[in-house]
Amino acid sequence: MAKKVRIGVLGVGRIGKLHVTNLVNSTPGAEVAAIADPFMNDATEAWAAELGITKVTKDPAEIFADASIDAVFICSSTDTHAEFIVKAAETGKHIFCEKPIATDVKVIEDALAAVDKAGVKLQVGFVRRFDHNHKKVRDTVASGILGAPAIVKVTSRDPEAPPMEYVKVSGGIFLDMMIHDFDMVRYLAGSEVTEVSTYGTVMVDEGFKKYDDVDTAIVMLKFENGAIGVIDNSREAPYGYDQRTEVHCKKGCVQVANDLNDTSMISTADGVTCAKPTWFFLERYNNAFIAETEAFITAVADGKDVPVTGIDGLMPVKIAIAAKKSLDEGRPVKISEI
Amino acid sequence: MAKKVRIGVLGVGRIGKLHVTNLVNSTPGAEVAAIADPFMNDATEAWAAELGITKVTKDPAEIFADASIDAVFICSSTDTHAEFIVKAAETGKHIFCEKPIATDVKVIEDALAAVDKAGVKLQVGFVRRFDHNHKKVRDTVASGILGAPAIVKVTSRDPEAPPMEYVKVSGGIFLDMMIHDFDMVRYLAGSEVTEVSTYGTVMVDEGFKKYDDVDTAIVMLKFENGAIGVIDNSREAPYGYDQRTEVHCKKGCVQVANDLNDTSMISTADGVTCAKPTWFFLERYNNAFIAETEAFITAVADGKDVPVTGIDGLMPVKIAIAAKKSLDEGRPVKISEI
Amino acid sequence: MAKKVRIGVLGVGRIGKLHVTNLVNSTPGAEVAAIADPFMNDATEAWAAELGITKVTKDPAEIFADASIDAVFICSSTDTHAEFIVKAAETGKHIFCEKPIATDVKVIEDALAAVDKAGVKLQVGFVRRFDHNHKKVRDTVASGILGAPAIVKVTSRDPEAPPMEYVKVSGGIFLDMMIHDFDMVRYLAGSEVTEVSTYGTVMVDEGFKKYDDVDTAIVMLKFENGAIGVIDNSREAPYGYDQRTEVHCKKGCVQVANDLNDTSMISTADGVTCAKPTWFFLERYNNAFIAETEAFITAVADGKDVPVTGIDGLMPVKIAIAAKKSLDEGRPVKISEI
Amino acid sequence: MAKKVRIGVLGVGRIGKLHVTNLVNSTPGAEVAAIADPFMNDATEAWAAELGITKVTKDPAEIFADASIDAVFICSSTDTHAEFIVKAAETGKHIFCEKPIATDVKVIEDALAAVDKAGVKLQVGFVRRFDHNHKKVRDTVASGILGAPAIVKVTSRDPEAPPMEYVKVSGGIFLDMMIHDFDMVRYLAGSEVTEVSTYGTVMVDEGFKKYDDVDTAIVMLKFENGAIGVIDNSREAPYGYDQRTEVHCKKGCVQVANDLNDTSMISTADGVTCAKPTWFFLERYNNAFIAETEAFITAVADGKDVPVTGIDGLMPVKIAIAAKKSLDEGRPVKISEI
Repeated sequence: MAKKVRIGVLGVGRIGKLHVTNLVNSTPGAEVAAIADPFMNDATEAWAAELGITKVTKDPAEIFADASIDAVFICSSTDTHAEFIVKAAETGKHIFCEKPIATDVKVIEDALAAVDKAGVKLQVGFVRRFDHNHKKVRDTVASGILGAPAIVKVTSRDPEAPPMEYVKVSGGIFLDMMIHDFDMVRYLAGSEVTEVSTYGTVMVDEGFKKYDDVDTAIVMLKFENGAIGVIDNSREAPYGYDQRTEVHCKKGCVQVANDLNDTSMISTADGVTCAKPTWFFLERYNNAFIAETEAFITAVADGKDVPVTGIDGLMPVKIAIAAKKSLDEGRPVKISEI
Repeated sequence: MAKKVRIGVLGVGRIGKLHVTNLVNSTPGAEVAAIADPFMNDATEAWAAELGITKVTKDPAEIFADASIDAVFICSSTDTHAEFIVKAAETGKHIFCEKPIATDVKVIEDALAAVDKAGVKLQVGFVRRFDHNHKKVRDTVASGILGAPAIVKVTSRDPEAPPMEYVKVSGGIFLDMMIHDFDMVRYLAGSEVTEVSTYGTVMVDEGFKKYDDVDTAIVMLKFENGAIGVIDNSREAPYGYDQRTEVHCKKGCVQVANDLNDTSMISTADGVTCAKPTWFFLERYNNAFIAETEAFITAVADGKDVPVTGIDGLMPVKIAIAAKKSLDEGRPVKISEI
Repeated sequence: MAKKVRIGVLGVGRIGKLHVTNLVNSTPGAEVAAIADPFMNDATEAWAAELGITKVTKDPAEIFADASIDAVFICSSTDTHAEFIVKAAETGKHIFCEKPIATDVKVIEDALAAVDKAGVKLQVGFVRRFDHNHKKVRDTVASGILGAPAIVKVTSRDPEAPPMEYVKVSGGIFLDMMIHDFDMVRYLAGSEVTEVSTYGTVMVDEGFKKYDDVDTAIVMLKFENGAIGVIDNSREAPYGYDQRTEVHCKKGCVQVANDLNDTSMISTADGVTCAKPTWFFLERYNNAFIAETEAFITAVADGKDVPVTGIDGLMPVKIAIAAKKSLDEGRPVKISEI
Repeated sequence: MAKKVRIGVLGVGRIGKLHVTNLVNSTPGAEVAAIADPFMNDATEAWAAELGITKVTKDPAEIFADASIDAVFICSSTDTHAEFIVKAAETGKHIFCEKPIATDVKVIEDALAAVDKAGVKLQVGFVRRFDHNHKKVRDTVASGILGAPAIVKVTSRDPEAPPMEYVKVSGGIFLDMMIHDFDMVRYLAGSEVTEVSTYGTVMVDEGFKKYDDVDTAIVMLKFENGAIGVIDNSREAPYGYDQRTEVHCKKGCVQVANDLNDTSMISTADGVTCAKPTWFFLERYNNAFIAETEAFITAVADGKDVPVTGIDGLMPVKIAIAAKKSLDEGRPVKISEI
């Protein structure tokens, strides 16, 4: 058996715990060497022990100081991502970083520069690229059997709006929620976005207005390769997580529907009822989270390129900033303006 | 049996023949009294005789002069629609007019004024409102069970691009093709469009560029009721006529997929194959054409309101003009500018 | 234009009226010359006049005596079918006969002998062969792309049970209802049935027991070509007409689902709702009725073979009798026993 | 944290390894204390060590002798199941046993008697009851909203036939393959099977004839509650694992389709292609295997009833023997005959 990639995990909130569980249970090539979280407590220590992880600390510096650690998973709050990337790069560790790297373009660019300088790998956590459905769309487009892409469409709606305390600090719908879709359209189109136009409205909760935010938005996009696209987002789809993508190409169209809880059809005099979509991202993207972890570990172990790069971390942030600017100024905004 | 509504048909090209056949075979309350077409020939006369229509003429004036005729079907070329509407109004005949009434707002407004003055009924041929699928979307939204509409989506793609001779005189994708979708979004949202933003591209045939046209377009829309929407059009979907609509509301979402040629699923080692969508509008909207004719005849016979009015004929033209202006000027355009 | 096939219609109850309407409105090559019905009354005469049919009579003999009539449509009660077939054959008229020809094998065989002797065409009204869905299954199997058929499956359930007065004289579920499915399996398998085994139960209405009938039945079948099959019937499917067929072959499987009222999907917190199947045979097989009429008229006009023959009328009756015998005797019954 | 249920695993072939992996990675309440397999070798020991299992042996007696072990997973060859059940019962260990317990009714009954006497729990590995789809069918029927079940249908087809060496010792299609479906119909109907009738044929591979077996079979069933049912099996469905169930009840019908690899639809001029069903049971029932393990561990830990009992292990064997007898003797066979 090949030597396992030794991982230090920074931050074990919900998403950190998810990655740790996947690394331990579903990623044979990885080994969680240590976890660091400033809020480390008895419950978390017990949870870690249960998984066989004995090194736990409140101090991230211990992770960076441990020369036996090959790579870090940055799962801490967004404001710490860039700093941890830089430290990991400086200490020669490969990096898996949750999205977004930061909400400021300059901060991201500086972090990417540090990564480049150090020559370590950096994979950004745009997990949807690893979903069986969206991947099928991308693979079909990339295969060329449908010819050049012309229209790229993404529907992305959360089952329920987050609490207002979250909305307040979320960075707004474009940086917090649609950022996944900006990554998705780049992935599906295989081309960079050059311009966006935004329409937004508040239909879910008047509270969004208080924070200069919208809860419902449509963004049109232009791509370098001549294609055009559109994303629609809603903070609330009471029927469940609505995640559909479609690319219409010169010779045909590929689209994916939602994953459902089951394939049942119940027919009565009152009507025909089918199962609802899976409830939220933990259900829908459960396998995708495992796959992105495996992809990162494989890239590190085999010295190959990671499938989601630093540039993939940077561009959606730029597009999100442009989308908000378009909404605010009531005009199309070029990405080159950002 | 009630007295039948006596119809004079103006223009018996493809769409005129379709309406005549439906009036004769599927609309018990109607009787085709006469047909007029400047290109009347032996073949058309024989076709009419076969259907039991004996009065045929090259001169539309004979229709207007015939006091026994209750209503006209205007199926002639677009440039004659407004003039025929005015004449029908002046001679006290109810009017079914194919879309668009005209491509000039002032011309339409004058025709509508003549209709108003005469007090005759005018129904415009936006046939898709009578489609079982789109009607289900509208009825669901109108029922209120889903709450206020937030996002209105229409996908509309023709199976193959028209010949360039047609493109040249078509008025462009917005007035020729997307006009149906502008009607559809007003119908689905139950609200007027206030602003549009357009992205367009040429992906199907470079020839479109020669006529200052695009073959692929996305238009975002704002509605008076706060909803936002998006339409995507392609002049070519090689798999068949792609006609899907969706309205996402506060409490849920209603969407309709394409009608398929059959419900088959063929599964082999090579894959699973299903039937293609019906090929084009004559297949897809066959029953809708019958239903719109029945609706008009019923409205005339019973003295009720027609389901698609003169304003419904005017507004999509304004939106189409605004959509083209947005494409040309690279900015959102308010409908009030038109 | 070719001379039209002149039709005399015998019996204008529900199914007779349906055929007359289709012949007049949707079958250009046919002309309804006369209709005969012992219950002819003013309402029916008015209905006929409306369709342009002026010759109406209570006496079927007038149809047979009219040398200008090329073919008859036998839509009268089942007990008159064989007699009318024989008379039509003797007077040299081609024959379209509603199913079943008779419920007695000897009677059918005698009628077929008269047809053979006269050399006229006889098409039996197994309309489902002309349905777009089932035809797709048959065409796929017949194309050979899936290899030899192994399992043939038919689900056929009526939306609601007929009244007990009808049940009493219906001939039982096998001759009245499943007879369509016996035709269907022969059509799909492209092979004769050699043996059946039946399980039946009363789940819908205890009244069926009174008439030595069941309302729910499953019949297994063996075919000459080695395939095996199964049909399930229920007199009541409150969600609508359930008509599904499937053939599993060596290299794959072809199956068809129900036609639905529309393609809608309505998603809310309470669940996802789709449209119900079309309600009953008039909705589901509407186009198939037109197609079978066209097929018969074309065969007569062009001197070609009819697509559903006298043998196709005989065999399902034999299978139905065998199926009832299997239920009664609790054992497999070979068709050769009948 | 509650004390973990300590498990000894007997047999670590394919299915044993699957259970061990699930117990270690996905069943927090369980702990694999030891594994025994007569074919234990270095590779298996390394695999076990990787999962943190240090006690491995070739001798099952070590498992039974270890008083710290609470329960056994019997995953060895079928001929050892009954003996291991008896030993586990005698040593006071709870039992999870893969299906079938044995292929001889008397042997099963003796094993169940030992379990009863010892008062330990026995769960039989009918994993499909834990599948999200079939469970939904059962739950819907059990809820009573559809009224009494009338028709129970199961389609079950393997993607490819097993090698002839396997067929030779398999016990035949009814005991080897359809046994799962016999369990399924009992589960779905909530009632015991009282009689079966079988049709079988060889369409996949002539080799099956050599072993007095068939590769394609249909079995009709009668249930105590008055319902009737049908199962169809094929050893080969080249498109993938075909696992569909349906129950038609007095007030409606519930059915489930296959799980697919993804939800894609690719539309071109050549047709519309969807994803194939998941390939085989490891893909399709992956989560069901985890769920059945969790259910067993929970029952043991909480002292509750297991969801699949010894009787559930016995009855399908009886039905399978009856089904083969029906095929051989060409007559319906009552389960009470077995």
